[in-house]
Amino acid sequence: MCSVIRRTKPVQLARALRFRANSEGSCYASADNRHVSPGLRSSTLPLSPGLTAAVRAYCTRMARTEGLFFRQLFERESCTYTYLLADTETKEAVLIDPVLETLNRDVKLVKELGLTLTVAVNTHCHADHITSTGLMKKQLFGLKSAICKHSGATADVLLKEGDKITFGRHCLVARETPGHTDGCMTLVTGDESMAFTGDALLVRGCGRTDFQQGCSKKLYESVHSKIFTLPDSCLIYPAHDYQGQTVSTVGEERKFNPRLTKTLEEFVDIMNNLNLPRPNKIDFAVPANLVCGLHDV
Amino acid sequence: MCSVIRRTKPVQLARALRFRANSEGSCYASADNRHVSPGLRSSTLPLSPGLTAAVRAYCTRMARTEGLFFRQLFERESCTYTYLLADTETKEAVLIDPVLETLNRDVKLVKELGLTLTVAVNTHCHADHITSTGLMKKQLFGLKSAICKHSGATADVLLKEGDKITFGRHCLVARETPGHTDGCMTLVTGDESMAFTGDALLVRGCGRTDFQQGCSKKLYESVHSKIFTLPDSCLIYPAHDYQGQTVSTVGEERKFNPRLTKTLEEFVDIMNNLNLPRPNKIDFAVPANLVCGLHDV
Repeated sequence: MCSVIRRTKPVQLARALRFRANSEGSCYASADNRHVSPGLRSSTLPLSPGLTAAVRAYCTRMARTEGLFFRQLFERESCTYTYLLADTETKEAVLIDPVLETLNRDVKLVKELGLTLTVAVNTHCHADHITSTGLMKKQLFGLKSAICKHSGATADVLLKEGDKITFGRHCLVARETPGHTDGCMTLVTGDESMAFTGDALLVRGCGRTDFQQGCSKKLYESVHSKIFTLPDSCLIYPAHDYQGQTVSTVGEERKFNPRLTKTLEEFVDIMNNLNLPRPNKIDFAVPANLVCGLHDV
Repeated sequence: MCSVIRRTKPVQLARALRFRANSEGSCYASADNRHVSPGLRSSTLPLSPGLTAAVRAYCTRMARTEGLFFRQLFERESCTYTYLLADTETKEAVLIDPVLETLNRDVKLVKELGLTLTVAVNTHCHADHITSTGLMKKQLFGLKSAICKHSGATADVLLKEGDKITFGRHCLVARETPGHTDGCMTLVTGDESMAFTGDALLVRGCGRTDFQQGCSKKLYESVHSKIFTLPDSCLIYPAHDYQGQTVSTVGEERKFNPRLTKTLEEFVDIMNNLNLPRPNKIDFAVPANLVCGLHDV
């Protein structure tokens, strides 16, 4: 049995994650830094507006955040992308969607780079692979697991709309994007330059909606209201890709996504007729991922 | 039979590629922009020194070149990375190491993005997959293939040390890095922020040296004199990765590469005892790649 929940204490969580209730309507990952809760550290970038603009102009279409280390990693069998982000100064780091099979690779990289991994977060309860968050916590002292509160899974931190994962001067803001599953989140960097979309939005595709509370109407609305409202230049980093595509942008997907550029009715029809085989690992991956991958591992 | 060589004319080449003889000793990819040959367009960035420094400071460890579109792509069977680079303003683009199996994906992306692909370049004559440059030329008007002159392969453009591939305001500078094969090149962006190392240097590894004129002593010297002399922050983009690692940096490889941090003697001994199986495709891939992949395709 997983003992993750029992280790969850509010004080610990407050140290690892700094939450901020969002009060800005649909602008869930605003780069505006004025509304930080009392006592919580500022989690967006301290760039002056002029310099921010200059940096943006000179780093067009590239990841461009001050002092942000970023590394995309891939697991070939399930075609899953794992993402490592860190503050280059404080060395605090966050890992998104780590996979059991690549646990050793990821831990080795974190150690080589001298990072302190504070949070390992899953964008949702995966059906095609087992997460490594549970076992990783046994190897990296102080690491907390995180997942959306609507996923039904246990973890040290249960995230909801607008919650922030802060690492050094940077943060990831959670946007709930249900549809593939009820507990899907998209994690957006504080400056809205990168979005980790899980299975909600893939490069020229999207996650299936035929199991795990999947709902194509919900997915369509999630993508259009929570992802396509980000800046066109925002980089899209999905949880999977099966064609060797590593990244896209909001602008590209708004223009070229073969499913999500359709009307809602057409989209629902497409999703209802995919006729995909049942995922090989679903029967043991989902129960395992409900407990940080520790079930029968 | 491939007709690539017959289409090669100096005037065409001068329009597609703008070469500059390097007169700066070992600094083959200098960001200094003062030594442009008469009549040839400037091919490095027109940033003022102060602004360049600011951009570099604010985009630590990330690709950061002004107006540079960059996309990493992957072919799963051979674990090959293909790279698309373009000037966001002029839309001129270069493709590095395209693979036959992903020809349609790559052509589609180029067209979607409205790019004009001027050069498709191979870092060397590959033994593990067939290049798509020959077939791609049939689909994209004006496209030129390129490879190192020491590869023994035919192409529209045969590159040598210090030659530049220019696309809009950007360029790739060829550094000869033999050892995996005699005709291996590393392509370095003009500002030395990114190096496409082919099979010379992989993430925490390197290409084998037991066929195709391979020589471990040459490879060691190539990496140390031509790649490890780049800035620590320079991003390393290899031709392959088998562990799901997408990128590294010169600093990381100088510190953590398990082979190239050794002495020359130790390195030669490691390479002599790898006992790797013969590549499955070598007998038809190499002959095909000597003629832009068009042999018996």
